[in-house]
Amino acid sequence: MAVYIVSRRFSGGGSTTSQLVGALRYGTGWRPYSTAFREERDTFGPIQVPSDRLWGAQTQRSLQNFDIGGERERMPEPIIRAFGVLKKCAAKVNMEYGLDPAIGKAIMQAAQEVAEGKLNDHFPLVVWQTGSGTQSNMNANEVIANRAAEILGHKRGGKFVHPNDHVNRSQSSNDTFPTVMHIASAMEINSRLIPNLKILHNSLHSKSVEFKDIVKIGRTHTQDATPLTLGQEFSGYTTQVKYGIDRVMCTLPRMYQLAQGGTAVGTGLNTKKGFDVKIAAAVAEETSLPFITAENKFEALAAHDAFVETSGALNTVAASLMKIANDIRLLGSGPRCGLGELILPENEPGSSIMPGKVNPTQCEALTMVCAQVMGNHVAITIGGSNGHFELNVYKPMIARGLLHSVRLLGDSSASFEKNCVKGIQANKERISKLLHESLMLVTSLNPKIGYDNAAAVAKKAHKEGTTLKDAALKLGVLTSEEFDTLVVPEKMIGPTD
Amino acid sequence: MAVYIVSRRFSGGGSTTSQLVGALRYGTGWRPYSTAFREERDTFGPIQVPSDRLWGAQTQRSLQNFDIGGERERMPEPIIRAFGVLKKCAAKVNMEYGLDPAIGKAIMQAAQEVAEGKLNDHFPLVVWQTGSGTQSNMNANEVIANRAAEILGHKRGGKFVHPNDHVNRSQSSNDTFPTVMHIASAMEINSRLIPNLKILHNSLHSKSVEFKDIVKIGRTHTQDATPLTLGQEFSGYTTQVKYGIDRVMCTLPRMYQLAQGGTAVGTGLNTKKGFDVKIAAAVAEETSLPFITAENKFEALAAHDAFVETSGALNTVAASLMKIANDIRLLGSGPRCGLGELILPENEPGSSIMPGKVNPTQCEALTMVCAQVMGNHVAITIGGSNGHFELNVYKPMIARGLLHSVRLLGDSSASFEKNCVKGIQANKERISKLLHESLMLVTSLNPKIGYDNAAAVAKKAHKEGTTLKDAALKLGVLTSEEFDTLVVPEKMIGPTD
Amino acid sequence: MAVYIVSRRFSGGGSTTSQLVGALRYGTGWRPYSTAFREERDTFGPIQVPSDRLWGAQTQRSLQNFDIGGERERMPEPIIRAFGVLKKCAAKVNMEYGLDPAIGKAIMQAAQEVAEGKLNDHFPLVVWQTGSGTQSNMNANEVIANRAAEILGHKRGGKFVHPNDHVNRSQSSNDTFPTVMHIASAMEINSRLIPNLKILHNSLHSKSVEFKDIVKIGRTHTQDATPLTLGQEFSGYTTQVKYGIDRVMCTLPRMYQLAQGGTAVGTGLNTKKGFDVKIAAAVAEETSLPFITAENKFEALAAHDAFVETSGALNTVAASLMKIANDIRLLGSGPRCGLGELILPENEPGSSIMPGKVNPTQCEALTMVCAQVMGNHVAITIGGSNGHFELNVYKPMIARGLLHSVRLLGDSSASFEKNCVKGIQANKERISKLLHESLMLVTSLNPKIGYDNAAAVAKKAHKEGTTLKDAALKLGVLTSEEFDTLVVPEKMIGPTD
Amino acid sequence: MAVYIVSRRFSGGGSTTSQLVGALRYGTGWRPYSTAFREERDTFGPIQVPSDRLWGAQTQRSLQNFDIGGERERMPEPIIRAFGVLKKCAAKVNMEYGLDPAIGKAIMQAAQEVAEGKLNDHFPLVVWQTGSGTQSNMNANEVIANRAAEILGHKRGGKFVHPNDHVNRSQSSNDTFPTVMHIASAMEINSRLIPNLKILHNSLHSKSVEFKDIVKIGRTHTQDATPLTLGQEFSGYTTQVKYGIDRVMCTLPRMYQLAQGGTAVGTGLNTKKGFDVKIAAAVAEETSLPFITAENKFEALAAHDAFVETSGALNTVAASLMKIANDIRLLGSGPRCGLGELILPENEPGSSIMPGKVNPTQCEALTMVCAQVMGNHVAITIGGSNGHFELNVYKPMIARGLLHSVRLLGDSSASFEKNCVKGIQANKERISKLLHESLMLVTSLNPKIGYDNAAAVAKKAHKEGTTLKDAALKLGVLTSEEFDTLVVPEKMIGPTD
Repeated sequence: MAVYIVSRRFSGGGSTTSQLVGALRYGTGWRPYSTAFREERDTFGPIQVPSDRLWGAQTQRSLQNFDIGGERERMPEPIIRAFGVLKKCAAKVNMEYGLDPAIGKAIMQAAQEVAEGKLNDHFPLVVWQTGSGTQSNMNANEVIANRAAEILGHKRGGKFVHPNDHVNRSQSSNDTFPTVMHIASAMEINSRLIPNLKILHNSLHSKSVEFKDIVKIGRTHTQDATPLTLGQEFSGYTTQVKYGIDRVMCTLPRMYQLAQGGTAVGTGLNTKKGFDVKIAAAVAEETSLPFITAENKFEALAAHDAFVETSGALNTVAASLMKIANDIRLLGSGPRCGLGELILPENEPGSSIMPGKVNPTQCEALTMVCAQVMGNHVAITIGGSNGHFELNVYKPMIARGLLHSVRLLGDSSASFEKNCVKGIQANKERISKLLHESLMLVTSLNPKIGYDNAAAVAKKAHKEGTTLKDAALKLGVLTSEEFDTLVVPEKMIGPTD
Repeated sequence: MAVYIVSRRFSGGGSTTSQLVGALRYGTGWRPYSTAFREERDTFGPIQVPSDRLWGAQTQRSLQNFDIGGERERMPEPIIRAFGVLKKCAAKVNMEYGLDPAIGKAIMQAAQEVAEGKLNDHFPLVVWQTGSGTQSNMNANEVIANRAAEILGHKRGGKFVHPNDHVNRSQSSNDTFPTVMHIASAMEINSRLIPNLKILHNSLHSKSVEFKDIVKIGRTHTQDATPLTLGQEFSGYTTQVKYGIDRVMCTLPRMYQLAQGGTAVGTGLNTKKGFDVKIAAAVAEETSLPFITAENKFEALAAHDAFVETSGALNTVAASLMKIANDIRLLGSGPRCGLGELILPENEPGSSIMPGKVNPTQCEALTMVCAQVMGNHVAITIGGSNGHFELNVYKPMIARGLLHSVRLLGDSSASFEKNCVKGIQANKERISKLLHESLMLVTSLNPKIGYDNAAAVAKKAHKEGTTLKDAALKLGVLTSEEFDTLVVPEKMIGPTD
Repeated sequence: MAVYIVSRRFSGGGSTTSQLVGALRYGTGWRPYSTAFREERDTFGPIQVPSDRLWGAQTQRSLQNFDIGGERERMPEPIIRAFGVLKKCAAKVNMEYGLDPAIGKAIMQAAQEVAEGKLNDHFPLVVWQTGSGTQSNMNANEVIANRAAEILGHKRGGKFVHPNDHVNRSQSSNDTFPTVMHIASAMEINSRLIPNLKILHNSLHSKSVEFKDIVKIGRTHTQDATPLTLGQEFSGYTTQVKYGIDRVMCTLPRMYQLAQGGTAVGTGLNTKKGFDVKIAAAVAEETSLPFITAENKFEALAAHDAFVETSGALNTVAASLMKIANDIRLLGSGPRCGLGELILPENEPGSSIMPGKVNPTQCEALTMVCAQVMGNHVAITIGGSNGHFELNVYKPMIARGLLHSVRLLGDSSASFEKNCVKGIQANKERISKLLHESLMLVTSLNPKIGYDNAAAVAKKAHKEGTTLKDAALKLGVLTSEEFDTLVVPEKMIGPTD
Repeated sequence: MAVYIVSRRFSGGGSTTSQLVGALRYGTGWRPYSTAFREERDTFGPIQVPSDRLWGAQTQRSLQNFDIGGERERMPEPIIRAFGVLKKCAAKVNMEYGLDPAIGKAIMQAAQEVAEGKLNDHFPLVVWQTGSGTQSNMNANEVIANRAAEILGHKRGGKFVHPNDHVNRSQSSNDTFPTVMHIASAMEINSRLIPNLKILHNSLHSKSVEFKDIVKIGRTHTQDATPLTLGQEFSGYTTQVKYGIDRVMCTLPRMYQLAQGGTAVGTGLNTKKGFDVKIAAAVAEETSLPFITAENKFEALAAHDAFVETSGALNTVAASLMKIANDIRLLGSGPRCGLGELILPENEPGSSIMPGKVNPTQCEALTMVCAQVMGNHVAITIGGSNGHFELNVYKPMIARGLLHSVRLLGDSSASFEKNCVKGIQANKERISKLLHESLMLVTSLNPKIGYDNAAAVAKKAHKEGTTLKDAALKLGVLTSEEFDTLVVPEKMIGPTD
């Protein structure tokens, strides 16, 4: 029998409803589920689990003990997949150290299914659980044990494959969870963030080349300044993104260090010598990323400085992208009462009341993302600094924050590039008009007539609403010919020979 | 025909897959959906929309233009529901100003369905869209218009009920979105956060009373200090939570101010006089909360200081709860090698490698929440400070952040109370043992023998590993009787007469 | 003999110099000092102190043990002065409880000198010391004891007036330091911040009135929108500042609660009943502010939620002021290539290379201050959340952060008002020109021709670079008379009857 | 005539006093100053300047226009010194491009005095000024011009050496200020932060070696866990600091890029080709640090991502140090009622009321610093993200924040090492006692009897208050000999062969 459940987490219903569906909460509305149950056990005793789910007793307890935040707060999918990768590798290495090959292979097969996202519905736990991620590690152990048992023709809950003794062999939550944090983050950074930043970088660079001959007024302090080309302006953005990529890459060597092999407190108790090196190698092979075993396992469990560091790089990228997006929306402001130097792509109606309005919505989505990344960074920093003794217990929050930031920055960079940057056009007419009205062209007179005289010229023109040339001639500091020779915007965009 | 789709947002697939399911993205795996399409139109032209969905052209465009973050980043449900409340009230007031009653009533009925969460699946847009929330406002307008048309026997997409001219009448995204931000936040604060904080407060207070006669060692700088009762210690926590409730309540007067009636820039263009007051009254009636029209609509659109302020109160609550949870886990540390003064409830196995271990997991979930709330606060502050001219365009991010913080604090306070605080027991034996070993009982000698002599006693006892009394007698600063009269922990827990 | 010392803290010299002047570090270059020394003692033994300084042994130890940050990091002056206020009041109340009146009066006189800032040079300790502020409390005790002894004709260091037994009688650092934190902050908020915010509020309000008839283009998403008056725009800023004042005031009830009387851990050990109430009353009288004794002394020592809360209010004020200053600099951008609607006062040359340039420097100083206030808020939040057991030991950092924010916001609000806001002029010609070119005036056609037609008009005009009227007539949706009747900016600045 | 002035900035006096001493504010009590004045001029006209000061008109205007924060907020000294370095180098390179050698050499001599800190008293401006630092650049130009004129026998104010045309030749504030930001920061990081972190690293490493044979109980979730050595625990701290040094060093390549040569907007207008490369080389030679010219000058003026990035590294170091300091104070808690595993050096009396109390004050100073660094990081991030167009105008705030963080971290690391870490002793007796009482030694039974049986043993022992061995024997899962062979803490501190 299958029914659809609207999870109470979304229904926001009163307490009566809440009580009613309490026991059914695992349903979470993602999929139809069976109403039948089986008994699972852990060291706290027996507990009822829905029969169509692979999880076991400890997962079920966590569901009931941590009713915080609702569905959307489930452990991020990259973490679940990374558990698949890790448990597969662990079984492989454990077989080298004596794990029964039949069981080992079944674990590998089940773990592969987790790695591919096929068993996502069996991972219902939220981020806001124990700070070591123990319950998500047990969720992985339980699901894989039950699935492996099925593969071997045994029934769920029978512990033919044991979640602790087989799947978690030579491991502790305290080393597996940091390990999956690192695997998931490194994979997401390499597969989602960096490629999208590179696309954005290339697109900005193309614009920089496309606009290389468009001379425009510069602005400092938001006030008119000396000219530059629009291409030069975009070259600044290009450089910011380029360095952003460098900054993230710079932090990866420490992200590639895996805690696995440290077990409970970093000593490696209950592992065999060499286990840590072998498992890092197995993960590296499985993911094609250069993971290595952590130099110091005590640091790797007790601190998440690598996450604070990488988040710091993301925070810098966010600062860069906020600057770029702000500039683009201001340069594209108008169409008639703004700066109007850029024409941004029109993607959708901009207003439900003002007909014909088009807005820089991609800039807005991106800058909102940047603000969130900066906020996540503070959360990660606070979590990272508050470890105690042999274990930092802000792990799930830290992992979620970094993965959230990586995902948002990656996706929004792609969206911004696709729906905004690559379609930006220069409003050449407007740019030219503004350039030639500017008073700051006076700066090129400094070497000839000195700063004080040049200032007098600019002030006179400003006060009288005339041109610089008029003012200069009236003040008698230059001849008309001299002025024409000196004040040429096209000559003001670089050093002289 | 109905099929199950695994959304690409979760599949993390390559770009080929991504292209393929692009058009199907609305499916998002939440429910089976039809593969048939109908045409919808907006000022940008026609666009295909899945026929079993009520949304229209602008929602569809946003889906395609803002592929950022995946399902979990959809606009929070309280915002969707608040749109239901608002649009219902708007139709009601608009009828007073001339809206066709047949259309008005159908809108009210459709909006009620939105308010009850029945049409959640028709709100697929993510937070990371235009910064005014225009697209979510249009999503609400489109869904309600199509649903109202159906109610009146017309077909979807026909605009018999027009999303802009009827549903959005007298409104702009620029005033509706801030209005729903305020409605959603005030409702969540009142229905979820405050009640749960009160439960926590009451539970801490009960513990304070229960423990009122248990004298224990105090600790300052983490070092032994003069005694207090365990009840006094808990009274500090109780007061923190009590003030936390006060702090949040203090900010509500500004949260109850609604922007509605300001329309595009705050002037109220295209509304009739009195519309703003009437609609605030209607919302107040609908929600039973004291909403009023904003004193200044320009401020209400251009800034979200009310959110920065309320988030500041949540940030303070988070600081309080972090202190409390930290204390409880440290006081409950052990069982044999820690402070061991508290016995915390055992809810689940604590370790996948260390058998029998039980951990303060509720404290961990709560402190992770607190860190996230502090991070969200920074994001909200950054968004709140970066408005330009007549509109702040960080609205969806700000709303999401506050609602996230409210939900997490509310849920985790409830969980912490239920699964930890109410089951805390005092380890009286341990408390008594520690108390009587302490050297800081020496403080009660100050008034009698002076600070310098008392210090000498404590230092001597410390150095020689003896008792204070031994040291005092050896130093000859007191008689045995004097010592016994003066050093009585039970007399050290308050001022003297 | 008097010499001038250049402190090594400013000299940044190598380690040799550093060693050399180590012992002279108290000199700090603020004043000439004597090279003679006297011996002072504490429970750690004797130590040399410069003879022309009033401090004693514990201050001297702290100087040597906490060589962090240099002169500028000394405890903020309002804290020093508040110690003067508190110690004076403590002596007064202690006399009621039996303190020798001769000694009590001398302490009051010495403390008064501290309160007046006359003995500032005798408070050399930096913020980065013990987290309870114990050493600054002892600094106050030592200086007042030595000064009181002098007043009574005794010599320094002789402990005729004892720093602990007399000056610190019935007190602990653990209650005095939070008490002076509250006194100093409440005084600074009331004397510096609120008055300056009120001046700024009044000035913005005056501008709002002055500009009430200037109709201008509105801007949302930085794009052209429907019109409003410049006065309306400024009314938004005015409201932000008004609410900002309210927000700060809302937090003061908890700031007025004094920890004094809690002594070491909150129990009030070594005080007499009623001491806490009496001393709060004395401080209230001395400062003319409504201080009361804290409802719960355990909370008052162990947490600084009141500071996190008040800092949250300052953070909101900073968000408001950043918005206002950003708007003003963008509206004043130009003079020829920006928005140019406001003319800002010219206070100084703006560029060392661009002659005649004038910049919105007051906006820049203010927004830098706002960023710092937001940063201080995070530091305060982190400190506030990390208390342990009976004492939060981030006290000096928290106090410094809040006082820094208060001072910067107060001073920069005054500077911004005086040097910018009150001199702002509207550039009426420019404002009018932009207004009449705008396409968003089309919005007033919605009620007549519907959103879709109105959008077509705007899009046509934008595409063809013509006026709205031209486009409307060509599309045949309106007659010329209808257009002229409907599109009147002056009628678009409020709801209709 | 020389008088002592107590600056109003410290006196906190009323407005009357404020007006009175307004003109004298430069005095600021740092030094006696003359009451005589001379006239200086800039493009805004003449202004009175105190005759004994070298600054000119623009500095004087800034003093009067930016009365924000008081003395302590003056531009950090490393910035002033870096201006000395830069202006010296600029004169040297300018001579190659035609600057009169007599003037050039005088400028170099004057600039050298600035670089050595000899003219600090002539730099009175605060951080909260124009956001480009223009006024501090002019302060440097004016002081050096006047001093150089004096050197050449001319009088102050006569502009024989012109601040703009000579000292600032080929430069703009917009490139000089970012250049001095980079010079000052790189110098402080190299001379103050890194050396002190290395000292701390070495000291922690020494402790790690010293404690390598002390087996102790581990703690995860603050609860008893499996054993490790105290040396292993310290090796985690050592690694954190080691990586912290790496993290900071990783960011320096971008910090070594100098903006100089970009002039007003990044184009290099008014410079000669090659100027940028030559001046970077000159600065590199002068400072012995590998400065190079920035790859993209537009990025170098418009953004300060390099500061956001480096601040992110400092933020990570702060997170590390907070963890370490927290552990040390908790492990050193007691002396009788805490964990008591470490004995921390006693540096000063810990309490003004509790005689004989000693506190982990160095940990407290350090953790306060860490909180402030995290706060500064947020301020820097906000400033860094809010640049507009060709110039970021949060420069002085950003520079101050980073230099503040560098100074505080550097000084407090040194203080923590000197006054705490190097004196830490292990309390071997206590450590041994706790170790042997722990139940988590049961973990070593897992491979033999399985997780579930081992859990039963631990739970029985905990419940009955007995030893693990007793429980194991009673449960009949092991023989006494087996237990003794398996449960050996010394064998639990690493993987097995």
